[in-house]
This record gives sequence, structure tokens and C-alpha cells, in this order.
Amino acid sequence: MGELRLDPITARWVIISTEKNFGPDNYQVEKLDTEEGICPFCEGKEKMTPPEVDADRAKDSKPDTPGWQTRTVPNKYPALANQAQMNKSGVGMFDMMSGVGDHEVIVETPDHSKQLADLTIEQIKRIIRVYKRRSLALSQDERFKYVLIFKNYGLVAGASLEHSHTQLISLPVVPRRVTEELECFNRYFDYKERCIFCDIVRQEMEYRHREVCENRDFIAFCPFASRSPFEISIVPKKHQAQFMDISEDIIDNFALILKEVLVRVKKTLNNPPYNFIIHTSPVNSAQQEQYHWHVEIMPKLTKIAGFEWGTGFYINNTSPEVASSYLKKVEVQDY
Amino acid sequence: MGELRLDPITARWVIISTEKNFGPDNYQVEKLDTEEGICPFCEGKEKMTPPEVDADRAKDSKPDTPGWQTRTVPNKYPALANQAQMNKSGVGMFDMMSGVGDHEVIVETPDHSKQLADLTIEQIKRIIRVYKRRSLALSQDERFKYVLIFKNYGLVAGASLEHSHTQLISLPVVPRRVTEELECFNRYFDYKERCIFCDIVRQEMEYRHREVCENRDFIAFCPFASRSPFEISIVPKKHQAQFMDISEDIIDNFALILKEVLVRVKKTLNNPPYNFIIHTSPVNSAQQEQYHWHVEIMPKLTKIAGFEWGTGFYINNTSPEVASSYLKKVEVQDY
Repeated sequence: MGELRLDPITARWVIISTEKNFGPDNYQVEKLDTEEGICPFCEGKEKMTPPEVDADRAKDSKPDTPGWQTRTVPNKYPALANQAQMNKSGVGMFDMMSGVGDHEVIVETPDHSKQLADLTIEQIKRIIRVYKRRSLALSQDERFKYVLIFKNYGLVAGASLEHSHTQLISLPVVPRRVTEELECFNRYFDYKERCIFCDIVRQEMEYRHREVCENRDFIAFCPFASRSPFEISIVPKKHQAQFMDISEDIIDNFALILKEVLVRVKKTLNNPPYNFIIHTSPVNSAQQEQYHWHVEIMPKLTKIAGFEWGTGFYINNTSPEVASSYLKKVEVQDY
Repeated sequence: MGELRLDPITARWVIISTEKNFGPDNYQVEKLDTEEGICPFCEGKEKMTPPEVDADRAKDSKPDTPGWQTRTVPNKYPALANQAQMNKSGVGMFDMMSGVGDHEVIVETPDHSKQLADLTIEQIKRIIRVYKRRSLALSQDERFKYVLIFKNYGLVAGASLEHSHTQLISLPVVPRRVTEELECFNRYFDYKERCIFCDIVRQEMEYRHREVCENRDFIAFCPFASRSPFEISIVPKKHQAQFMDISEDIIDNFALILKEVLVRVKKTLNNPPYNFIIHTSPVNSAQQEQYHWHVEIMPKLTKIAGFEWGTGFYINNTSPEVASSYLKKVEVQDY
């Protein structure tokens, strides 16, 4: 079980796993488990994971047996655990909190050989519905202030298992990155009575030189101040604060654009490692209607070095205009 | 030449290199240049770098020839360039600035086979004096608001050349990470009329369970909310806002503790890649006397993944108390 500790300098929270407390030997370079036979996320290996909390499965099949399309299980090595009592305390001049939270894994397909970009639109729609369902379920617990959905694809991006999966974490605090975004959304709204992301969407649709692709409900583009090369945002055109409020009639187009963007990234950059994050508004907090949910996709092509650590300031050697021109250029079929 | 772009959501600046504008093929994994014969930082290869701007060299030797102990040259591939005119402008609803700044490389030794941890105390003192001299020189240009000194050691930490070197960048804006720290220093001071770092030093010296080592003028410890395993701060015991104000009588002890910490890191973690950053107060700005300069050393043992990107919140699997116990345990000689 972990602790949340507040850095008094930057007001940033850190999760410290006092239970694991890895020594130097725990940091050897690990290889991804590539063997299909021993993978705990494969069909037939259901007993290797904790019992499932959600699944798309055949009506006559039993939990934790084969016969599923998606399967959600608690993380076997959670960063945070839900059993814990919520305690806040001071340690000398410092502040900490018990690391209470949920940490789940959504196995996206029973097929070990397919990654998210390779799945059918139908399957991607199923996955999006799981994201929604689990977000709604976890936000029922009023101790939690944030539900984060993210995916690490590839060893360099932090994945430890090859079988295609997404992670979901509920947190007892609103993370700093989100608070900062919210402050900005609110400041902009107070001044202009408009949403800053709605304005960005409008501008990107007008100029088109950072656009990657679009459909009726979504636009994907490389953001103006991309922190890393080939960074992509996918944004719903209509204002919506919470991802989990996504309606069935736009899930189709979300699946379509997500697939298209991932295929473009895969083809342009030769199947790179990447991180995928759904940025959404806090839960169980005062209404944050100014927020506008969106997806961030960050191919992992460069390293965070001393400069970035020292400044919180990124050096990016590919402008978003050039990145989008490469991403647009590759041929993809109509999905 | 680069552009500085302001992300309107997070108020974070990003440097975009519109000149390089690397395509997908530029992101192949590069190997470190390990061959002594062709290294541009080796003695005898001075013509391979831009002309030196500073050097510790024998009195009878000429610039850009052999006979030096340290040598500072402009970076051949700078993130920012000093020739540029300073322009600030709007781009639609976005803001940008020309990427004006200096980017220098301090070659720490003529000996290709030695890293910073291997150098003598005398040589490390020379290097610290170069840090000081170049910081003072670059801060003469009133357009610059910040001078950052950092070191990437090892490929994983972002180094592109093996020969031991430090980088120095002057920036036309105060980076967000520093602004945030300053806000915190000021808030704490307004409330308590004390420096938060002076209080942290006092507390770490009292409890000792996160301490790595100390001497009369400095203490090294693993910070309470370490973002990554085995993170270490080196802090001067006496309050001082600017690193470049370091006096000759404490340079000795700074060299001693820096060497000891680097040797402990090298022995404990089997010569890991690391980033080293000097955090100091802005220059050419209103007095920021509340700041307390310090060094951050971050061994690169884990990867920044989706969770960290999505939250600005780190997961760390080794508590600083355990990390410091490992670091203290290894035997090092007296320096």
C-alpha cells in the first residue's frame, strides 16, 4: 500500500510505495512478456488475475472463464489500494495521505497478437463503453476526486505486459496537472465567457495546418505547443466536461477517429511506443463545467532529460505543423 | 533557430525547433559516440567545436588548442541561439516568442575515460568555478531571465556524447517549474518569515533518516516527496538565493559533497544514467532573495508513463528513507 506525499515546494503529490520499497536490484531492465502461452491477459488464463469486475462476455459464460470480448480486473500490483482507510497527517513539516484509490486493468481483447490500433471499430466501441462504465462505477465512491484512464504501449512508454490493455486509476486528490488546466479554463471563461478548448477547436478547423483528421463529432490535431514530437489531441467538437458523459451517438465517431489516429501514428512512425491519456474533469467536486475533455496521444520518441526536469519546459524538434503533414500523408483505409 | 510557444492550457513554454523539423527518420535510436579518437570534446580535437568562450588552460597555450583542464564552447546544435532578435507575437489565439538564448557546453576534463564522479576534488572545484563564471557572464545580458546548469549522464538520461560534460542554457523567460517554486518560497516566507528550504535542512539534520551525507556547508538527502527512486538534493546549509553568488570558501565543500554523492550513486546503483540540475533563482528580475539554491540529482531508473503525463504526479516505488539507507551503506573513501 502506498502513501501520498505532498512536495511542499511544487505542491505536487507523489505516491510512495512503502510496501514494495524496491532496492537497487529491482531496477534492472525488464523484458516485455512476449510469450502468448504464459500471458495472464490471454483467454484461458483468467485465474492468473484477480477476479474480474467487468466483462463483455457470452451470456452463458461464467465470470473468470473464457468467452469474453473485454475484461476488467483489479491491478495485481496496484499503485493505490481501495481497502485502505483514508488518513491525512503531518510528518514534521510535511504532509501526507494514505494512498487510497482503485487501480484497474482493462484487457482490450482476448487476442494476444492484436494491439488497439489493429482492433475492429466494433471492438473499439466496446472498449470505449468499458471506459465509460468503469469511470461511472469508480466515481460512485465519494472519497475519489479523479478517475484517470491511460494506456502505456510499448516498453519505452512504460508498459510491462505486451497484451493490449488500458489502465484506470481513481485518486483521492485532483492531480496538479488537472488543477492547472482547470484554473486556465476558468480564467479564460471568466474573461471571455467561452471555453478555451472550443475556441482552439474552432481555430484548428479554420486553419487546418495542424489538423490530422476529423469527423462530424471529433477533430484530431497536433497542438500548437506540442511538448513532444508528433503529440496529438483528439477533442470532441461539442463542449462536454466529463468523458463519462459521452453519449452513445458520438461513441461511434470517437471509435472511428481513435482508430484512424492510432493507425496513422503506427504507419508514420513505424509502430512507436506511445502514451494515451483521457483528460477529463474531476468527480465529486464542485461542478467544473468549464472543462472540455480530450485525449492526448504522445509517441515516445525522445527522452526527458535534465533540461525538462529543471524547467518543466520541453524541447521539441518537430513543429506540430510538420508532424501533422507527415501524419496526414500516410494512406489509411476508410473505417 | 527555435521558437518559444506558450501552451495556453498549462502556461508552459515549449521550444519548437522549426529549423530542424525532424521527420520520423530522425528518431532512430542513436548510439553514444564511444570512440575516443573521433570525440569532439577530446584534447587535440578542439577544431571540431565552435571556438571556446572559456577555458582553464596553461598560460602559454593558445585558445582552441591542447593544454586545457576545462573548456567551454557554444553548443554546435543549440536549442536556442543568441544572434536572434527578441520578438514576441500572437498567432491566432496563441502566443509565441523567438527562441533567443545561449546554449553552451562545459567539457569537464580533457580525459575521455573519466566521468564527473571519477575526477579529483581539484578538478571538480575547477568545474564549479566554471559554472559560476559562465552563469555570471550569461546573466550580463539583460534579456535573459534564467540561467540553467544541467548534466545528462548516460544515453537513457538524454546524453548524446559520452565525454563528460555539463550544459548551460540562458532563457528569456523564467521557466514554470522555477516560478512555481518561487511562489511557494514566497508564500511560506510571507506566513512564517522563514525560508522553507532552511526549515527543511534543519528538519533533515534533526531526523537524519533521509540524509545521505553532509559536511560543514552542505547536506545531501533524499527528499520527502521524491519523484523518482534514489532522487537526491544537495543543499547549502546557509541561505543563498543564487548559485552564482557561491563564495570561494564553500566551493571546497560543494566539490567534496558532489563527489561523494556521485560516487555513492555510482556504487549503489551500478553506474546508472542520471540527470543533475542546479536550481537557482532567476536573474535580471525583481530580487528573489527568498529562493534557496540547490542541486537535484535524479538517477534514471524508471520511465515516465501515461500516469505521470496525465497527472504531473509521480509513482515512486522506493521511499526516500530506504533509498538513503542504501546510499549511506556503501563504503567510500574520505575525499
